[in-house]
Amino acid sequence: MISSSHVTYDDANMGKANEGTSEISDKLKKAHERIETLRNDGAQGFFDLPFDGKIAKELERMAKEIRGRGIKTSIVIGIGGSNLGAKTILRALDEGKGAETIFLDNPDPESVFPFLSPSFDWKKTILLVISKSGRTLETTAIFDALWKVLKKTLGSTANEHVFIITELVSGNPLFERAKQESFQVFPHPTNTGGRFSVLSAVGLFPAALAGLNIRGLLNGAKEMEEARRKEGIKHLAVQFAARQYIALIQGKKSIHVLMPYADRLSQFVFWFCQLWAESLGKNGRGQTPLPAIGTVDQHAQIQLFIDGPGDKVVTFIAVEKMMKQVKTPSGLNFAKIMDASRQGTAHALTAQGKLNGTLTIPSLTPESLGALFQFFMLATAYLGELLEINVYDQPGVEAGKKETMRLLGLGS
Amino acid sequence: MISSSHVTYDDANMGKANEGTSEISDKLKKAHERIETLRNDGAQGFFDLPFDGKIAKELERMAKEIRGRGIKTSIVIGIGGSNLGAKTILRALDEGKGAETIFLDNPDPESVFPFLSPSFDWKKTILLVISKSGRTLETTAIFDALWKVLKKTLGSTANEHVFIITELVSGNPLFERAKQESFQVFPHPTNTGGRFSVLSAVGLFPAALAGLNIRGLLNGAKEMEEARRKEGIKHLAVQFAARQYIALIQGKKSIHVLMPYADRLSQFVFWFCQLWAESLGKNGRGQTPLPAIGTVDQHAQIQLFIDGPGDKVVTFIAVEKMMKQVKTPSGLNFAKIMDASRQGTAHALTAQGKLNGTLTIPSLTPESLGALFQFFMLATAYLGELLEINVYDQPGVEAGKKETMRLLGLGS
Repeated sequence: MISSSHVTYDDANMGKANEGTSEISDKLKKAHERIETLRNDGAQGFFDLPFDGKIAKELERMAKEIRGRGIKTSIVIGIGGSNLGAKTILRALDEGKGAETIFLDNPDPESVFPFLSPSFDWKKTILLVISKSGRTLETTAIFDALWKVLKKTLGSTANEHVFIITELVSGNPLFERAKQESFQVFPHPTNTGGRFSVLSAVGLFPAALAGLNIRGLLNGAKEMEEARRKEGIKHLAVQFAARQYIALIQGKKSIHVLMPYADRLSQFVFWFCQLWAESLGKNGRGQTPLPAIGTVDQHAQIQLFIDGPGDKVVTFIAVEKMMKQVKTPSGLNFAKIMDASRQGTAHALTAQGKLNGTLTIPSLTPESLGALFQFFMLATAYLGELLEINVYDQPGVEAGKKETMRLLGLGS
Repeated sequence: MISSSHVTYDDANMGKANEGTSEISDKLKKAHERIETLRNDGAQGFFDLPFDGKIAKELERMAKEIRGRGIKTSIVIGIGGSNLGAKTILRALDEGKGAETIFLDNPDPESVFPFLSPSFDWKKTILLVISKSGRTLETTAIFDALWKVLKKTLGSTANEHVFIITELVSGNPLFERAKQESFQVFPHPTNTGGRFSVLSAVGLFPAALAGLNIRGLLNGAKEMEEARRKEGIKHLAVQFAARQYIALIQGKKSIHVLMPYADRLSQFVFWFCQLWAESLGKNGRGQTPLPAIGTVDQHAQIQLFIDGPGDKVVTFIAVEKMMKQVKTPSGLNFAKIMDASRQGTAHALTAQGKLNGTLTIPSLTPESLGALFQFFMLATAYLGELLEINVYDQPGVEAGKKETMRLLGLGS
């Protein structure tokens, strides 16, 4: 058992991956030093985001003002790192008390078409356009199509319905356009990539619009980060990363399954998958993240996990206390079914020699969710250092983009 | 290029997996013989399901009668193979013209709680409970909890709001209960497992309730199956399976990514994942299915696919003609963005020596979806024969179940 703020890791079923951690303590120390350098130099911003109370205050103020204008719907236009964090927060915490949130990411004409109608209630709708570079093809295409309708419908006040999150650098076409059209702009931190941006305006503004407690998110993440700075290589995130490193390198576990037993964390898994895949998958290396959800995947994927190739490590997420209580007439408690199912699954995996560990949070709150976000970003950073991979770039994405632009007859 | 009804496979980027197919033609012939035996003996029912016009007629009649009673909502209670097919059909084809469908699978108290209110509009709601064995813990627990409320609210007519799909065999507790309480029952075919049941009542009844064209689904699947019977080992599904076999065994591609470029196929991927994982993942063997969606995963997973370990084969699904047309004000066509993005991604994968192939359907209709279902079930069956795996059992699931029941103090 290793604990940090809100999160406990049970590594009892991680077998040889536990035993090897002391052997790599020098590697862990070096990784920690490099990470502290990245942080101190300001080269990577996600370490410090939870401490930025100023942006939270500004977003809360703006969200309140927008809701005060009678806005009922926010359409978030962004893809990948620009919406996975917000989607995760909303799926986990939204109780339907603030604005309704619609996410548009894919330029699939069938998904975008319903929003091109002038009879859509545009007066009560805002567009929130998120792209770090301001050049994301999918995002700008969807925004262009919706902006045309919005402007036609609302005329000279249309610009008051558009909010932009992008890098405030000259030459960024979305930033230039925002200035020209007088859209409200929030900064996308320059030293933070999309997949590490959930605790910046990128994740927090949609959450604030939905009326959620963004301070709680930041506080949970802050406690996790403070514990790391204090505990160094003994910290939960470092020790978790160490076990995954050993599982991958020595155990050849090329696949990492994340399997929460809580529907409200079903989107968290996809946020994790981007983080793990895009940060660690390069130079022919990396570990493939695989999404799962308990109990559902006991009836879909678990046969493969238990009885298939020994190429996986499974990380469960358990929620100790559910917010609602449901029982069958005969007294069978639903939370107990979830818990017993997770334990039964862990037991069966272990019996087949399949590595698995369990992260437990006391309940799903803004604080514990913020802590989980920071935990996984830190674990990714440490694992990348151990693997000697540059966690923060994505060189493999460029080749496909170039060919796509060529096929569309567009310049890069 | 290999084609069958509605589906074309472009294998140009499958490299060595193409070259090896003639070498394994004896294996393919044997696999085909075994499959024809399974079919002729009636040991596996999914081959013949598309030919069963009688059940379709009965489901259509019943769905019409139910909608005629003013039912607006159907709550489908089932997990894994009992709901993934229906979810897939609805996500692909539903236009909101029939009853609204709510899927309950996970006994997560927070997901089930909102449906325990007597103020829910139960008069306009039916429960459709799906479990082949009639013993699925999650399904019966959710049904028990909802049935209590339904009975309390509607009294003696409550049973008219419950429909059951289960095996009609004595000793099946759900079947016995249905007889006792006078619930309407439809048969779950005994010779068809959940993951192969999409074209039985399991997938078709929820679709019929939503007002969808279930005949079209069956017809598309029927054409695919008829082509297979006629063409034998030259058929698309066999040739696709052959390439995956070579990619897995010779190319050590342990992961199969399915990546459609159409939001309406986003759920299809999860249906495929169960089929591939549960059918092929056993005895330490199998290939791990990985869900993806274009263009979204170009911004999440593609870095890993292109630049990470060479352990994957990617199958794209392209939809030639989208139902809606959307353009940006400057004339950029959304369908073209989707298409160019897929081609750009395939190009980049191929440039890095990563195997990939593309399945194309002319448009997303009941017929093409039915054909895709049958295609993937057939491909799974052939790949299993090539791998000498029993496709139709799931022995690994039992161990976890037993421990869960023990922890809950329930007999198995």
